[in-house]
Amino acid sequence: MNTEAVSHEFDLVITNGVCVTAGDVAPYDIAIKDGKIHLLAPSGSLSGADAARIIDAEGAYVTPGGVDCHVHLEEPALFGRGSSSDTYETGTRSAIAGGCTTIVAFAPQNKAEPSLLKALADTHIKARGNSYCDYGFHIMVGNPSEQALSEMKMLVENEGVTSIKIYMTYTALQLRDDQILSVLLKARQTRMLTMIHAENGDVLNWLTDQLESQNLVAPEFHSSSRPPILETEATNRAIALSSLISNTPILLVHVSDPGATLRIRQAQTNGQPIFAETCPQYLFLTRDDLNAPGFEGAKCVCSPPPRDKASQDAIWTGLSNGTFAVLSSDHCPFNYDDAEQGKKTCITAEHPAGRFREIPNGIPGVETRLPLVFSSGRLPLTKFVEVSSTGPAKLYGLYPRKGALLPGVSDADLVVWYPEARRPDTIVSNAMLHHATDYTPYEGRKVANWPRYTVLRGKVVWDRDNGGVLGQKSFGQFVKRGPSSLGRVWETVDEQGEFDVAGL
Amino acid sequence: MNTEAVSHEFDLVITNGVCVTAGDVAPYDIAIKDGKIHLLAPSGSLSGADAARIIDAEGAYVTPGGVDCHVHLEEPALFGRGSSSDTYETGTRSAIAGGCTTIVAFAPQNKAEPSLLKALADTHIKARGNSYCDYGFHIMVGNPSEQALSEMKMLVENEGVTSIKIYMTYTALQLRDDQILSVLLKARQTRMLTMIHAENGDVLNWLTDQLESQNLVAPEFHSSSRPPILETEATNRAIALSSLISNTPILLVHVSDPGATLRIRQAQTNGQPIFAETCPQYLFLTRDDLNAPGFEGAKCVCSPPPRDKASQDAIWTGLSNGTFAVLSSDHCPFNYDDAEQGKKTCITAEHPAGRFREIPNGIPGVETRLPLVFSSGRLPLTKFVEVSSTGPAKLYGLYPRKGALLPGVSDADLVVWYPEARRPDTIVSNAMLHHATDYTPYEGRKVANWPRYTVLRGKVVWDRDNGGVLGQKSFGQFVKRGPSSLGRVWETVDEQGEFDVAGL
Amino acid sequence: MNTEAVSHEFDLVITNGVCVTAGDVAPYDIAIKDGKIHLLAPSGSLSGADAARIIDAEGAYVTPGGVDCHVHLEEPALFGRGSSSDTYETGTRSAIAGGCTTIVAFAPQNKAEPSLLKALADTHIKARGNSYCDYGFHIMVGNPSEQALSEMKMLVENEGVTSIKIYMTYTALQLRDDQILSVLLKARQTRMLTMIHAENGDVLNWLTDQLESQNLVAPEFHSSSRPPILETEATNRAIALSSLISNTPILLVHVSDPGATLRIRQAQTNGQPIFAETCPQYLFLTRDDLNAPGFEGAKCVCSPPPRDKASQDAIWTGLSNGTFAVLSSDHCPFNYDDAEQGKKTCITAEHPAGRFREIPNGIPGVETRLPLVFSSGRLPLTKFVEVSSTGPAKLYGLYPRKGALLPGVSDADLVVWYPEARRPDTIVSNAMLHHATDYTPYEGRKVANWPRYTVLRGKVVWDRDNGGVLGQKSFGQFVKRGPSSLGRVWETVDEQGEFDVAGL
Amino acid sequence: MNTEAVSHEFDLVITNGVCVTAGDVAPYDIAIKDGKIHLLAPSGSLSGADAARIIDAEGAYVTPGGVDCHVHLEEPALFGRGSSSDTYETGTRSAIAGGCTTIVAFAPQNKAEPSLLKALADTHIKARGNSYCDYGFHIMVGNPSEQALSEMKMLVENEGVTSIKIYMTYTALQLRDDQILSVLLKARQTRMLTMIHAENGDVLNWLTDQLESQNLVAPEFHSSSRPPILETEATNRAIALSSLISNTPILLVHVSDPGATLRIRQAQTNGQPIFAETCPQYLFLTRDDLNAPGFEGAKCVCSPPPRDKASQDAIWTGLSNGTFAVLSSDHCPFNYDDAEQGKKTCITAEHPAGRFREIPNGIPGVETRLPLVFSSGRLPLTKFVEVSSTGPAKLYGLYPRKGALLPGVSDADLVVWYPEARRPDTIVSNAMLHHATDYTPYEGRKVANWPRYTVLRGKVVWDRDNGGVLGQKSFGQFVKRGPSSLGRVWETVDEQGEFDVAGL
Repeated sequence: MNTEAVSHEFDLVITNGVCVTAGDVAPYDIAIKDGKIHLLAPSGSLSGADAARIIDAEGAYVTPGGVDCHVHLEEPALFGRGSSSDTYETGTRSAIAGGCTTIVAFAPQNKAEPSLLKALADTHIKARGNSYCDYGFHIMVGNPSEQALSEMKMLVENEGVTSIKIYMTYTALQLRDDQILSVLLKARQTRMLTMIHAENGDVLNWLTDQLESQNLVAPEFHSSSRPPILETEATNRAIALSSLISNTPILLVHVSDPGATLRIRQAQTNGQPIFAETCPQYLFLTRDDLNAPGFEGAKCVCSPPPRDKASQDAIWTGLSNGTFAVLSSDHCPFNYDDAEQGKKTCITAEHPAGRFREIPNGIPGVETRLPLVFSSGRLPLTKFVEVSSTGPAKLYGLYPRKGALLPGVSDADLVVWYPEARRPDTIVSNAMLHHATDYTPYEGRKVANWPRYTVLRGKVVWDRDNGGVLGQKSFGQFVKRGPSSLGRVWETVDEQGEFDVAGL
Repeated sequence: MNTEAVSHEFDLVITNGVCVTAGDVAPYDIAIKDGKIHLLAPSGSLSGADAARIIDAEGAYVTPGGVDCHVHLEEPALFGRGSSSDTYETGTRSAIAGGCTTIVAFAPQNKAEPSLLKALADTHIKARGNSYCDYGFHIMVGNPSEQALSEMKMLVENEGVTSIKIYMTYTALQLRDDQILSVLLKARQTRMLTMIHAENGDVLNWLTDQLESQNLVAPEFHSSSRPPILETEATNRAIALSSLISNTPILLVHVSDPGATLRIRQAQTNGQPIFAETCPQYLFLTRDDLNAPGFEGAKCVCSPPPRDKASQDAIWTGLSNGTFAVLSSDHCPFNYDDAEQGKKTCITAEHPAGRFREIPNGIPGVETRLPLVFSSGRLPLTKFVEVSSTGPAKLYGLYPRKGALLPGVSDADLVVWYPEARRPDTIVSNAMLHHATDYTPYEGRKVANWPRYTVLRGKVVWDRDNGGVLGQKSFGQFVKRGPSSLGRVWETVDEQGEFDVAGL
Repeated sequence: MNTEAVSHEFDLVITNGVCVTAGDVAPYDIAIKDGKIHLLAPSGSLSGADAARIIDAEGAYVTPGGVDCHVHLEEPALFGRGSSSDTYETGTRSAIAGGCTTIVAFAPQNKAEPSLLKALADTHIKARGNSYCDYGFHIMVGNPSEQALSEMKMLVENEGVTSIKIYMTYTALQLRDDQILSVLLKARQTRMLTMIHAENGDVLNWLTDQLESQNLVAPEFHSSSRPPILETEATNRAIALSSLISNTPILLVHVSDPGATLRIRQAQTNGQPIFAETCPQYLFLTRDDLNAPGFEGAKCVCSPPPRDKASQDAIWTGLSNGTFAVLSSDHCPFNYDDAEQGKKTCITAEHPAGRFREIPNGIPGVETRLPLVFSSGRLPLTKFVEVSSTGPAKLYGLYPRKGALLPGVSDADLVVWYPEARRPDTIVSNAMLHHATDYTPYEGRKVANWPRYTVLRGKVVWDRDNGGVLGQKSFGQFVKRGPSSLGRVWETVDEQGEFDVAGL
Repeated sequence: MNTEAVSHEFDLVITNGVCVTAGDVAPYDIAIKDGKIHLLAPSGSLSGADAARIIDAEGAYVTPGGVDCHVHLEEPALFGRGSSSDTYETGTRSAIAGGCTTIVAFAPQNKAEPSLLKALADTHIKARGNSYCDYGFHIMVGNPSEQALSEMKMLVENEGVTSIKIYMTYTALQLRDDQILSVLLKARQTRMLTMIHAENGDVLNWLTDQLESQNLVAPEFHSSSRPPILETEATNRAIALSSLISNTPILLVHVSDPGATLRIRQAQTNGQPIFAETCPQYLFLTRDDLNAPGFEGAKCVCSPPPRDKASQDAIWTGLSNGTFAVLSSDHCPFNYDDAEQGKKTCITAEHPAGRFREIPNGIPGVETRLPLVFSSGRLPLTKFVEVSSTGPAKLYGLYPRKGALLPGVSDADLVVWYPEARRPDTIVSNAMLHHATDYTPYEGRKVANWPRYTVLRGKVVWDRDNGGVLGQKSFGQFVKRGPSSLGRVWETVDEQGEFDVAGL
């Protein structure tokens, strides 16, 4: 389609759109050239431009391509009976069909393996040539060995990997507080952002044992094994550890609980560099979804589990008032039913409704994230773009290449939504999704809009009405990331200087 | 200069700048046509464009023109011995020399006058044809009469006046809580934003009497007459009154105190529509500046008074974390020394160091606001633009015409700063300022940068190195404002519906 | 009965009781002589003592006589259609029948009258010779005139009146914040405790007007006219005013609202001398009681109004954790139905369910206070004694003469309750009460225990099973009170020294 | 001395004292018989009584004997170079000389030993016949084995041991959160009070390693290894764990940090059964005392370490406002200098100022606790008695036998202080103390008063001016304790019922 692009002034023009960025909403036209945003011009002024292709947005909203920085693909199972149902190919295909043009996935280090670089290399192999969208990697720590810590500098400086994920839960991954401090200290020195899964693992193991001892094992008891206080407590502890290392920046991932939210807010009120993420499951699902009869609730088993209605409201408020910097999917899919491995189906004669301990934790969501939230009407559109695209791009060092519409600077990654007059009333069903998972927890929900076109580096990779997924799995590129640039995060660290244990 | 503009493709081009908006920082070029932002294009790509004038920013930052929504000009004195030293002519001249292209000033209603429309008409007469920059008006209530309340609808719908200022202090203006509720109820119904000066007037009068009875009358005792608790208390009360009327949006102006800041933050944490403003005097001055020997401290007498160093830090933190939506000047100048009226000089034989009760409250600052804060290095540049230009424009219904760089939509209001290599080390002195006031409280401070050019609707109105003020006092236009569009302020009110007293 | 007392070693002995004080619970015997506690001895050891009378408590609890420091008797009406239904005679008769041996009532100053001493003298005339129990007076300020303020010293030093009541509501009594400061300053200087009714009067007047304008006038709308935020706000303001005057001690009376409770708690957490009182109506009634059909709800109209169930729980928690120093009745009775004056019955053709604005605010409760709370089982018995007897005695300068069982020191004021085996299941009915009011809001409630005997200065004044009220209205004595001795209230003030306005 | 007691009406009379209990201060006389408080009578009335001995208090204060429930004696060293310097004999001798008549010490379970009963038996052997004062034991858990947990019921029901101590720090003792939950669950079921040392052990180990790696090993760095955030964090975690097990009562021991204090206060504000203890070292020492030159600072090495001046003030405020239920000594003495074992003296050629890691943690204080706090003048005397005698007695199930002056019920344990006229100006020196430790951290401090007589079960065991320690080490008795009776701690648990994991 773009074969003769060289002969046109522009490769692509989007005209008659209402462009939304993290800061602004206004009607203007966008011209694209060589994969980059090239010109922004008055609305309609480019409708007759010399372009290989002109898309008439017909008054619809145009947003920067979604950036989803919490995506699990092809990771080994941590526990339970199941393995990731999405490969890089199927996961990124799902992403672009949902308007997401960049993901950051995880390069998991095995506990038995001291090297982080090895984990990275292994993950590159999985992703290379298999990605429909652009991608980067967080390193995920299983073993904070001396070697691992010493490799962090190289990850930042050579490999474009500037974020590191650690866990306060899951036996296979859980770090003790002293190990967390070692990671935080090195992260401070290397300007790496530390992502923390904050739930108290010791407590949840104990609760799980208690529940099992009373034969309370159906999916709904997954919630009882991880009550909100586990998240509030671990969040408080993570913030304490950050403050101990001279206020080293951290990101609390997938926050679900008002208590944790409040604790994060307090830290931000005090000016501490505490960032937070939430996910659609905490905005659209509740504990009641886990209480579905039989094994059905397993479709909503993720960690932390969805909470109650009041918690949902608190999370929405946290998005509105800036407590949450990013909204990610935490796409972490497992099949509900798989004859071969019995993945999520841990149904046995002994446990006819399944056994929650063996249900892998995680749900699919990379494709539904943007449509669900865009359609909700509960956020200003600028805030929607901020938390789902620009904010993640800044937080994870992808900005301004990603998450923005800056002429000559930003990749031409865009979503064109449907105009009001043409909005299809979309009922979410798994049949319409592009992942390799056999269900979606949002089955049957109506959403008011959906990406009509997704554009990645100037190329239309998704055209919902004409062919669907048009991109190719070889088109997605690995993106080296720089240090986080949200707020003055590292500038402040520069000013404060190194961690001084004697000054404690 | 632009006389032959018709023959060019563009009227003005800014090339080689690093453009900063509330959301983004990136190098790109800006083309201007017919007073509007016309094109945004890759950096340097327009350096050879067909334009009536091309300004080479030489790598300097380019920001939207400043929007200062708290400016007092030509108002009658509330008390004390002095009257406003700046007219619309001198005040707006000072504004553009400091990079400010739009102000919103006050149309004050006299206590004896039941009509707000009359106050507006009187103020239009003062401003029309006398303004170097664009301007709007807030209505300032002295008498919340039936007539006044009933006119609010017309102010919003016909007059483009969508904000109303009330006082919890100053005998001449102070409203009782029941009067405040009447204003808030009508403001909710008419979609007017209520600005509140929150200090407890009864308490400060009592404290002033106590101080006077002990002959503690020097300027420094102005601080003792208005301790922080007066602001914390009144802020809490204002928020309570807002919440009572179904969470009607309010703006707390010129917040100086950490206690008030924390109270505001709590309300925002709860999702209440409480907005807040601070001013440079609370970022750069302290109480010590009032303790200058003799009458010198009078130069820093404003209300609330500057606080201590810890409070300054808290206010900076509040700017960083989003507690404050806007940073205004609260330009409210009086001459320090005036032979004729003895304005600020209430020095008598009885009171050789003056009598703080008679010192009019207010300091000049419309010209120094942007340079001081831009140069501080304590805010991300996007945050600087957000609180000094885009935020005020959104909050006060000027957006997207003002406060943005949106092609075909925004007025071409810009500031071009000095590039690093050419930065003059500017020492602030009153001699270099363009107001009609005989001092600046920032005399002698070094600032790292200053607006090199100020552009208003495509016209260079300030060229620091070539002529200084180039604009004319007839160039500024009155701007009708729409309802506030910051966040989802009125959408939320729409959803909640009317105030329901029976539901209390 | 005690006519031959001179010939016995003791006038009265209570044997086989379990004595409860604010600190202790233990079985021991009490011997009384000359109106004082004389000996405490091992349980049963005095059962054969040489005493004019021996009461065998049969294992029942014995507590110090109740001290109720919030009782309104024979006060002129503030507003509405009705006047106090209890005289000193009927109110104190009711008190002793409910186990209360000391009250502190109010000496109200009329707004038109500058003198406090005059108000005191007038009230002495009403009470003298008409009181079944001992009594003191708080001065109630209607007009904080120069004269009034100057008389405070004399009240403390000569008259034994060491507490002063002020209002932030009620048009006839409401003080502005500057007037409150004048009272607080003088109270600090004279060591007088300031009791504050904290509701925002301006706001409630406005809300009442709003309700009336919508014809929402039935008793239930009394609640809508005084929502909790009025109390939270005024409480915050009162605490701010106290802190302004160098942390001058205040008492917030009849606290009903969790928000106010939390604010008080914060002040106490910071070490501020903020004391608080609550009342049985906030422990046993709710807003639903006001929603009774027709005019019935008028029986529960008091200010603040009873809140919801969650608020009740919060008030109980506040009693348990020490937030509340005292539990008073706020006995302020008006007849529900009175042909002559139509007191509470403001029922007219226009308002068939009455008009809440005209319902006098207040309910009877001096007799039911102790039985309700003693029986609740929600407080440790020591805490029950602390908040209903010892705490008030200390707070109001009656201790150790009142509120304690100290040999040779304390008046022999006692309540002997029923032993478990003899506990009557008492259903509260107005018929059994001894006030002169035609209803009780607690009609029909079951209480688990009731004072069997009330002893005042060694004399059995109430014997429930043998004659009921045995005392005489001439027996009650006026008690001069000293300064408050709860905690280190005035010691701390002594250490801090005088209010220093220059230091603000 | 009391040999002929049988022939007198009373064994001992204290006349002319001003008796202070947790609730009251008043002058009255006390008669003692058979080791019990027998009569309380008007002041002076017993001065001529028929008693084996009459002590004229000469107007001095008389208080119940001190109860110190945090005393370490003859415990094996946890780490470092040193062992407890006090035996039961020397420690309890020191106690009575300081007015303390009952201690509760620890029966430590070794990590290698699964049984708690064994630990108890071993400790009984050490104490029996070697104690000058009465004593009880807390069980100290090193290994929460199945066996240990199952023995808790027997400890409560048969052994009179109703409290259990656990640690969140110290490698030899630290329990993980799941182990803590197991203890709390069993403690709830058996009505045992759980005492928690809340500092984050993993973090402090990490910090210690960091300090060591930088050769920061002098005593002062003990503070850097245990900053306040370790205590705040662990306190928050402990409270979370308690709330998880349906609000099971816990006691936070030796609280030193305002952050932890505030967290505890919040829990109490919410009505949670969270109790707290502090110690004189947090009221009288600061971090500066650790910064003494050379090894001198080792004299103040305890855990948590003394904090700064502001923290001291916060702890005093917490005592005043009821946040702290008890004030204990945490007497845990080690010799400063011991040629044989080099106990605290870990001075080597490599570490000329010693190595803080090897300094055992703990200081002596059982003898100085009461005089320091009594003399401070910062607490009401009733509060002094409450936190140092009555409160501990109630909290630990010793009441009303201990901590009170109840006729026929309480042991006659008393302290008679010096009257104002005879007060010696006592300068604390180690020479005057009766422990077996070679220093006191309070050397050189002036205290305003000191116990003149200590009476244990009616026997004068300390007469400062005539013989000093008069008691014998065989006189102290083991006291079986019942369940905690402070507030409604177990009643509330009874009402709430069992822990219900499914309800989480």
